Amino acid sequence: MTDVWAQAIAVRPIGDGIFETTLDDGWRVGGGLNGGYQMAVVGNALRAALPSKPDPIAFSTHFLSAALAGPAQVHTRVLRDGGSIATVEGRLVQEGQERIVVLATYSDLAGLTDEVATTAVPAPIPARESCLPSSMASDDMRRIAPLMDRFDMLFDPAHMGWAMGEPSGEGVIQAWFRLKDGTPPDAVSLLLAVDALPPVTFDLGRPGWAPTLELTAHVRAVPAPGWLRVRHVTRNVAGGMFEEDCEVWDSADRLVADRKSVV
Amino acid sequence: MTDVWAQAIAVRPIGDGIFETTLDDGWRVGGGLNGGYQMAVVGNALRAALPSKPDPIAFSTHFLSAALAGPAQVHTRVLRDGGSIATVEGRLVQEGQERIVVLATYSDLAGLTDEVATTAVPAPIPARESCLPSSMASDDMRRIAPLMDRFDMLFDPAHMGWAMGEPSGEGVIQAWFRLKDGTPPDAVSLLLAVDALPPVTFDLGRPGWAPTLELTAHVRAVPAPGWLRVRHVTRNVAGGMFEEDCEVWDSADRLVADRKSVV
Repeated sequence: MTDVWAQAIAVRPIGDGIFETTLDDGWRVGGGLNGGYQMAVVGNALRAALPSKPDPIAFSTHFLSAALAGPAQVHTRVLRDGGSIATVEGRLVQEGQERIVVLATYSDLAGLTDEVATTAVPAPIPARESCLPSSMASDDMRRIAPLMDRFDMLFDPAHMGWAMGEPSGEGVIQAWFRLKDGTPPDAVSLLLAVDALPPVTFDLGRPGWAPTLELTAHVRAVPAPGWLRVRHVTRNVAGGMFEEDCEVWDSADRLVADRKSVV
Repeated sequence: MTDVWAQAIAVRPIGDGIFETTLDDGWRVGGGLNGGYQMAVVGNALRAALPSKPDPIAFSTHFLSAALAGPAQVHTRVLRDGGSIATVEGRLVQEGQERIVVLATYSDLAGLTDEVATTAVPAPIPARESCLPSSMASDDMRRIAPLMDRFDMLFDPAHMGWAMGEPSGEGVIQAWFRLKDGTPPDAVSLLLAVDALPPVTFDLGRPGWAPTLELTAHVRAVPAPGWLRVRHVTRNVAGGMFEEDCEVWDSADRLVADRKSVV
């Protein structure tokens, strides 16, 4: 059953840079489909539009309207393709309405230099056996967010008190993460990984699934096979909006992706 | 002389969402015009296209080709305008070539709730009298970056050792910042402020002005009049690219903008 993910993001070219797809209700959360899932569908179409540059490096998404299960199109346009970098545009369109609009930079991550110099340290998530599996989520949560059944997520219990009405107040949610169907992570599925956890504001005692306005993901490396560690933090709630930042670490302790967003 | 900035970013509507502008050589750095200046020109056109929503909130920019002094056009398109938020697209075009492409969310920051909950702390920049003024920059630096003469910048000396061949190695550059012509900061000029300092990699002993691929700026509040504090950091250099993050604090100790980018 390793093809659940491949099926969910499959796109078919119909010419002029347009791709057809069928959005799957299994990735719903609340009244619309998960934003990271939409990004991965667009990301997969952009990958198909750029055969020699398979990997998103910077992926800026603005959310316009709620995507629903059913047929949709991805309109792609190559703005520049030179050297090792291409800049592209993607629009997820459904029933004549734009759902998300994306500007992205693509490259071949495997073809870049291996040099890494970093002072970043891996997300401090406890060992998996000390974490709370998403399979313990309430039926209520599962009805709101059926997409939770598409992942194995193991949550740091220090930031899950909100589920029992006792949020830590620190503005952190972090978990081990993998696709349930066994597909190893790649640069496109990282676009999902940065938007799969519950809103970080739950840990501040603020319930409710606020719609994301803008989300920029950066992919730093093709992830090693195995579990990812995903850490979301917010430092700033202002003007009725909040920031939600995220880091993703792979099984080789490498920072493979991050996210910065306004919700 | 408070109109140098207003002149530099002035746009004239010519219909169909298109604006004419004249890019000014005074904002050049190396072989092209400063990216933050280009963002502010596009940001000013988008502001003009949205009379009731003057303030960029999320501003995602992808850089395609080097902008030069001279005539240019900004093509704007409103993707969605409903409630308190609008999503818009802007393209800076010169001689038939796209220079930068922007997706942005606009609103009226003054009309949002005043609630602020934050754990962020102001950039730790020494008092102004302990900092190094940009007016001390070498003639060499000034030839490369004439835009430095458009600002007053007072640099934290702890991260200016690179100018004497002794970088701190920490990956930080920070400074007090204001426009030289006395224009107080606003939401559009913050787009310039997040991209005005020398590359943070100078502090890692890596010289050279690398072109930015992607830069997303978030504006959190209309800044109070007076000096801004701008702090750039990098934690991660990988694959021949690096991240460059930035925070901007106003004279009232409020986090008013941030930037995340891939260079």
